[in-house]
Amino acid sequence: MKIAKAITSLTESFEKLPGIGPKSAQRLTYYLLRVPQAQLDEFSNNLTRLKKDTVLCSVCKNIAESDPCAICGDKSRDHSVCLVVENPLDVLAFERSGRYKGLYHVLHGAINPLENIGPDEIFIEDLFKRVNKLEEIIIATNPTMEGEATAMYLKKQLLTLNSELLITRLGMGIPTGADLEYADDVTLTQALEGRRSLN
Amino acid sequence: MKIAKAITSLTESFEKLPGIGPKSAQRLTYYLLRVPQAQLDEFSNNLTRLKKDTVLCSVCKNIAESDPCAICGDKSRDHSVCLVVENPLDVLAFERSGRYKGLYHVLHGAINPLENIGPDEIFIEDLFKRVNKLEEIIIATNPTMEGEATAMYLKKQLLTLNSELLITRLGMGIPTGADLEYADDVTLTQALEGRRSLN
Repeated sequence: MKIAKAITSLTESFEKLPGIGPKSAQRLTYYLLRVPQAQLDEFSNNLTRLKKDTVLCSVCKNIAESDPCAICGDKSRDHSVCLVVENPLDVLAFERSGRYKGLYHVLHGAINPLENIGPDEIFIEDLFKRVNKLEEIIIATNPTMEGEATAMYLKKQLLTLNSELLITRLGMGIPTGADLEYADDVTLTQALEGRRSLN
Repeated sequence: MKIAKAITSLTESFEKLPGIGPKSAQRLTYYLLRVPQAQLDEFSNNLTRLKKDTVLCSVCKNIAESDPCAICGDKSRDHSVCLVVENPLDVLAFERSGRYKGLYHVLHGAINPLENIGPDEIFIEDLFKRVNKLEEIIIATNPTMEGEATAMYLKKQLLTLNSELLITRLGMGIPTGADLEYADDVTLTQALEGRRSLN
């Protein structure tokens, strides 16, 4: 049976997205067939504008509407502290918590020799340029092999550039709401090492 | 923190889709930020064209490129049998199996008094108009409350219109690959009632 090209084309577009398989792609396409044309046009418009209406902030490399971004340009924030993350989504997570008031630096990845991603492939050099204006750098790369390797590399290089700099790493341990029974050995070891006095 | 409007708008568009929550919507949007503009434009174009390039077949009410659709217009198919389904996706499922060679009729829903969907809200009248050209009608609505109610209603009405008509319902029972242990009572009862001789 020949399926309408308009349907197969859109299904293929959905299939290219991460986490959407052929069945879900088909389901989404057929769902959209029952939606008003205005909603399709809006969705379509939002897609074309996504990259046109955003820029990389030249300071922190976060994705933003303006350059410098709203955070780098905010004088009420603490410009002496910088939190280094792998992805723009990590910035959102910290902003959602609402407790961090310093600046950010988005690396757009982590050092990963297996995939040929070295320090030059991500925005590390741009972080080094900011060092003189900072007092503390909080390294918040992911607790994965690549994230840890990146953290180690950053620590060494940053201290060479400025030995006065305070360099910290996010606290590791049991996340809120987790079940101790299912925590892995590394997490438990780090939770023990990072234990805090309650007195 | 102010997130770029281009990002929140697209995230909202994704959130409107079934099965995509706020977190997945955000993830998809940030994924698309790293994709070439050409892919965004193609996706966008496929969305606007979806409904413009498709029509409802005036005979079977399936979504198609032409009217009548490729199936209704195919003289090599058996025009005396019609399989009645709730949704266009069900047609795809039967076509994928490749064994059915008759026609279809898509109701675009099922009778559901709780949601105020009566016989007039779905394409039932259009099925009645086809009755004189058919010898058998296979009712393949879903084995749900609504699907069964629709099947019962169709059977009654169709026999009033043409008492010669053969009306069948899809075989019910254990699906291939299923585990008997987890089959529900209704399915097991129907599997027993529908047992077939192997001699």
